[in-house]
Amino acid sequence: MKIILTGDRPTGPLHLGHYIGSLKNRIALQDTCTQFVMIADAQALTDHAKEPEKVRESVLEVALDYLAVGIDPAKTTLLIQSLVPELFELTSYYLNIVTWNRLKHNPTVKAEIKQKHFGEAVPAGFMVYPVSQAADITAFKANLVPVGEDQLPMIEQTNEIVRNFNRIYGQEVLVKAEALIPDMARLPGTDGGMKMSKSLGNCIYLSETESSLKKKVMKMYSSDKALEDPGVTEGHPVFTYLDIFAPDKEKVEALKADYRKGGLGDGTVKKELNEVLQEFLQPIRQKREEYARDPKGVMEILKRGTEKARTTASKTLSDVKKAMGIIYF
Amino acid sequence: MKIILTGDRPTGPLHLGHYIGSLKNRIALQDTCTQFVMIADAQALTDHAKEPEKVRESVLEVALDYLAVGIDPAKTTLLIQSLVPELFELTSYYLNIVTWNRLKHNPTVKAEIKQKHFGEAVPAGFMVYPVSQAADITAFKANLVPVGEDQLPMIEQTNEIVRNFNRIYGQEVLVKAEALIPDMARLPGTDGGMKMSKSLGNCIYLSETESSLKKKVMKMYSSDKALEDPGVTEGHPVFTYLDIFAPDKEKVEALKADYRKGGLGDGTVKKELNEVLQEFLQPIRQKREEYARDPKGVMEILKRGTEKARTTASKTLSDVKKAMGIIYF
Repeated sequence: MKIILTGDRPTGPLHLGHYIGSLKNRIALQDTCTQFVMIADAQALTDHAKEPEKVRESVLEVALDYLAVGIDPAKTTLLIQSLVPELFELTSYYLNIVTWNRLKHNPTVKAEIKQKHFGEAVPAGFMVYPVSQAADITAFKANLVPVGEDQLPMIEQTNEIVRNFNRIYGQEVLVKAEALIPDMARLPGTDGGMKMSKSLGNCIYLSETESSLKKKVMKMYSSDKALEDPGVTEGHPVFTYLDIFAPDKEKVEALKADYRKGGLGDGTVKKELNEVLQEFLQPIRQKREEYARDPKGVMEILKRGTEKARTTASKTLSDVKKAMGIIYF
Repeated sequence: MKIILTGDRPTGPLHLGHYIGSLKNRIALQDTCTQFVMIADAQALTDHAKEPEKVRESVLEVALDYLAVGIDPAKTTLLIQSLVPELFELTSYYLNIVTWNRLKHNPTVKAEIKQKHFGEAVPAGFMVYPVSQAADITAFKANLVPVGEDQLPMIEQTNEIVRNFNRIYGQEVLVKAEALIPDMARLPGTDGGMKMSKSLGNCIYLSETESSLKKKVMKMYSSDKALEDPGVTEGHPVFTYLDIFAPDKEKVEALKADYRKGGLGDGTVKKELNEVLQEFLQPIRQKREEYARDPKGVMEILKRGTEKARTTASKTLSDVKKAMGIIYF
């Protein structure tokens, strides 16, 4: 059975982009794979060291999102990264077999540094986070890691560490990971931008209320065509959302045909999308509210998952230390 | 009572240079301070990742040296670094409040990189070791750290982390450390070089046998003056050693006077030094052999010390995580 490691940095609640890009996949994969889903609070701190309360609060929010969409703790191991100390130890040992130069040239990190406007003040922890990710992946002997194309260098870095470790210490202790690139379309932001992203303020959250959802949909980016003019549906974010979320594909095709012909306005299409998304989010919202009534119960789920995860991680750490020959007692 | 953290990278047995530079001091300080002496195996691996067996074997050797010279486990807490996982966690959190740029400009690390001929292949773990040292120092709330002048930037880096952490997280959790620079002369190598250093092959080890000690002393760097010529005692390594180790200072002064006058050869002075060092090392060697007969007993001492050290370190880690607000249960 394939072993999957995946997760999120807890820096806010999850949105529809997360659902399409990863959560949906996880719900499917939990039936056929051994799946670890990590709330990566320690990794979130690499670029949020000054806002630990945001990270702290988001741990519960993210867990609620997971449970609400149907990630099942009986099938998926949910864990909090900072509560698995073995990950920090593995990171330290891996840092000794990765060069400083190699870290400097990680394309994903380089792109993120630009995007985050760190200037000269890139935290050292941020520069080394690919090594910490390698620790996460290898600790659970994950051989399948769902990532976006832009995260492929992370898998490469992990596999480089795996190869180097096994070669240097002469044992096949660590397991190579394969990237699993979801074939789903990326969800554009409500502003029509490439990507839904909290920092761009163009998100629809899984925890959105009925009224705020409606407001966001009605304000979505759309064409400024006159009602009677023919319109373009391709690349139109409202239609992109409909393509992804509407259960009745024929109805969407009919709407598209009308829109292209002219005589159908953006308002009508948005109303349709609002109905579709309300229907999609309503059961998620309801399940989320139920769990939210018992935050201790949710934390208990994370605690049990973390304990289970630690059993696996501590076995790997012990194998790693044995291979290095630094077991003393 | 002052709290001291000090230690050694286990990469070989300790020598007279260690004795003069640090061990002697530790023996004195253990009566008046709370002293933690760490066998820094994890730090040794930052530049010995490919020779873990050397590190592994040296842990016992270094412990034997400690016990042989009189570091008393009833007064000093002896510990193995890699067995205190809290240190790895602290390192990770501190890395988030130190910039990548700052690490690049650490003068001690820069000098060591040159000296170690890493070229382009500086291990990332080596670049971040000052942060790991800050974790070591602060974990035990050490406020006194014996270092050589060349290590002062390490204390600066630690105190910068202490200041930043306490400021960012609004609590006086971490304690500043003060450097304790020993006023003892640095012991030259047997080749007359500035420093005794294993890599230079100019060491007299604490575990030296009687015959190998004699051989090394008789081969020491000396002047090539003819027997009857007047000689220079200043900067002469054999006299430097005598100044440090000979209990009878008057006798040394008399030898010096003769040597300066002429008529006294290097051989005679070396014979004197051999006697002095044999007398100095004989009880150390004997005690070392006694302990070496019971390696399990020695490891047991390290185990107990490490457990004691973990109690302190885990209290600090818990304070650190509380200050950051990432305690979940």
